[in-house]
Amino acid sequence: MPASGGERISLALGLPDTNLFPRESLARAASQTLADVPEALQYGAPFAPLKEHIVELMRRRGVECRQEQIFLTCGAQQGLSLLARLLLGRGGQVLLEQMAYTGFQQALMPLQPQILSVPSDPQSGIDVDAVEAMLEAGARPALIYAVTDGHNPLGLSVSREKRLRLVELACRYGVPIIEDDAYGFIHYGERAEPPLRALDGRWVFYVGSFSKILAPSLRAGWLVVPEELIPVLSILKESSDINTSTFTQRIISAFLDTGELENHVSTLRGEYRARRDVMSKALGEHFPAAARWTLPTSGIFFWVELPARADTTALLGTAVEMGVTYIPGNAFCVDNSGLGLNCMRLNFSHCAPALLEEGIARLGRLLKSALA
Amino acid sequence: MPASGGERISLALGLPDTNLFPRESLARAASQTLADVPEALQYGAPFAPLKEHIVELMRRRGVECRQEQIFLTCGAQQGLSLLARLLLGRGGQVLLEQMAYTGFQQALMPLQPQILSVPSDPQSGIDVDAVEAMLEAGARPALIYAVTDGHNPLGLSVSREKRLRLVELACRYGVPIIEDDAYGFIHYGERAEPPLRALDGRWVFYVGSFSKILAPSLRAGWLVVPEELIPVLSILKESSDINTSTFTQRIISAFLDTGELENHVSTLRGEYRARRDVMSKALGEHFPAAARWTLPTSGIFFWVELPARADTTALLGTAVEMGVTYIPGNAFCVDNSGLGLNCMRLNFSHCAPALLEEGIARLGRLLKSALA
Repeated sequence: MPASGGERISLALGLPDTNLFPRESLARAASQTLADVPEALQYGAPFAPLKEHIVELMRRRGVECRQEQIFLTCGAQQGLSLLARLLLGRGGQVLLEQMAYTGFQQALMPLQPQILSVPSDPQSGIDVDAVEAMLEAGARPALIYAVTDGHNPLGLSVSREKRLRLVELACRYGVPIIEDDAYGFIHYGERAEPPLRALDGRWVFYVGSFSKILAPSLRAGWLVVPEELIPVLSILKESSDINTSTFTQRIISAFLDTGELENHVSTLRGEYRARRDVMSKALGEHFPAAARWTLPTSGIFFWVELPARADTTALLGTAVEMGVTYIPGNAFCVDNSGLGLNCMRLNFSHCAPALLEEGIARLGRLLKSALA
Repeated sequence: MPASGGERISLALGLPDTNLFPRESLARAASQTLADVPEALQYGAPFAPLKEHIVELMRRRGVECRQEQIFLTCGAQQGLSLLARLLLGRGGQVLLEQMAYTGFQQALMPLQPQILSVPSDPQSGIDVDAVEAMLEAGARPALIYAVTDGHNPLGLSVSREKRLRLVELACRYGVPIIEDDAYGFIHYGERAEPPLRALDGRWVFYVGSFSKILAPSLRAGWLVVPEELIPVLSILKESSDINTSTFTQRIISAFLDTGELENHVSTLRGEYRARRDVMSKALGEHFPAAARWTLPTSGIFFWVELPARADTTALLGTAVEMGVTYIPGNAFCVDNSGLGLNCMRLNFSHCAPALLEEGIARLGRLLKSALA
């Protein structure tokens, strides 16, 4: 029981809301699959109808691609890990923003790359001028890692102009971009900008996921990559875990057959948009006046910048005692610059709105007392 | 349609029989899980009740271990891959039999180890004298890979005396053994020898799998390792694919709750033993008199040695035209010694008995004509 006497509230992890999974539809898809398809329990090649569904999903995201360019993975994290292992020789270089998803940093760790970092602006994202300067000066990293929508941890979406410039640079210098689009389908405007992959199919390697639009425990994601990479990815994948579960591939495909996904994603957008607005309002009411944040137009995170003297790592212990958690900003920093020490990442998808508000109120009390 | 006019018969892959999966029981477990446990679709920590079931399974296999030593994986292949990455620095050494599971060779490939190989005898398995000589001469490989039951590809089980000596050597020289026990529960005697892990819990790292006793598409396996390795394995696993599906973990655990596994494995043993006997009889009737094989006491493979002039790689094309496939022995050879060129691995678990007999009859015709 936290000291504040209330429920524990996690604003830390990037979890979808457990109550919003389309549980009954997935149960129907699972029963039907097990009743009709004995092969669903066997080893198996990637399920072509699922790939066709993904081609259609990508089309709705503004990307034209073919089934032959789709590679099925055991979630987006496996996609990132396989691409890192594919592209990166031991001791090679990678180009990252200074604030980057810790899971990708973990995937890189065993490969011990040299990290070239460029600034990330909390409003506009990756500093494309810095990328250009680095490439112009002769750097040839094995890959550039980019999150253009629902940035984790910064919660931002990158402008169309920056997208065009990034892709142009990748093509001009022949450097692959790994585009992590785990949150791209969860956008709150009328329509999202198409991802980088819509602009180029040669140098942009797209990573997609069913975790945020369907359910994480299906452990299913996909890559859209140049067709000639599929055979070597297949070998890497087979040596890692043989194949992605044919059972969950079939369940997802059966669910997509029903056509329910579009409505479901639309429900998620509505729910998460409402929670975003609750969190935004609560931040305004409870956080110190000097705190700064931007309203996310996609994804599931707020990035909050506090006055420089706030140390969010040091404050976390007290927050936990108060029954609320967040991720300290510095946890995402790719170097030891100390960037993000006064920042926090706050998730708004996992908790119900009332808890979000209560969580922010508790953090507000903590911050006001710490900064007083 | 193959030239022989009959059904295509695969004796190549190591697949269980699709018709023997406990499909209805798994369907019940899946429905119940989705009806009762919303968290089954969420990210999640390893499911403790499943670990408890595995402790009990290991006890039936003669191994005493604790829940804290169990690490859940996305199938045995992931277990092998994670252990290889854990133990093996770039350019390190591994000790393998000359004939080894290709999946483990694939898992090693990205790590580019130096391979130290010892002979494998088709009847008795790994040459322990050679292992001892190598270690005595100063070799300190990062790991020894061993399959003591249902050896893939040799189909043999290792004697108790060899087991004791192997473990004694691992302990004496401080070299970890990766014990791949994917087939250990599928034995045809009254009782199988306990695996190496029963003899030592410090240097033997055990790899288990639900693929052969339940269903491959659940993609679930486990390691039994010293407890202090679990945190670093967790980081490697998380960077690879976050976590093993909570959904399939829960399904397996719910199935194991019913207590049906013991009967199910008993059914599998009975069925596969009958098929083994069909294949053995067919080999005697249809294969050239000079062919040699040993009756497997566990696992799902026969290893057949033909006269030296038979080239099973060259013959495969004709076999495929005749509608039957196998794996040429040399495919398993870890070096370029040409070992196994006159051998073939034949699977007897996937096809119904009548097809097994027909497949062996076709291969017999092919071999008699090729060797005439």
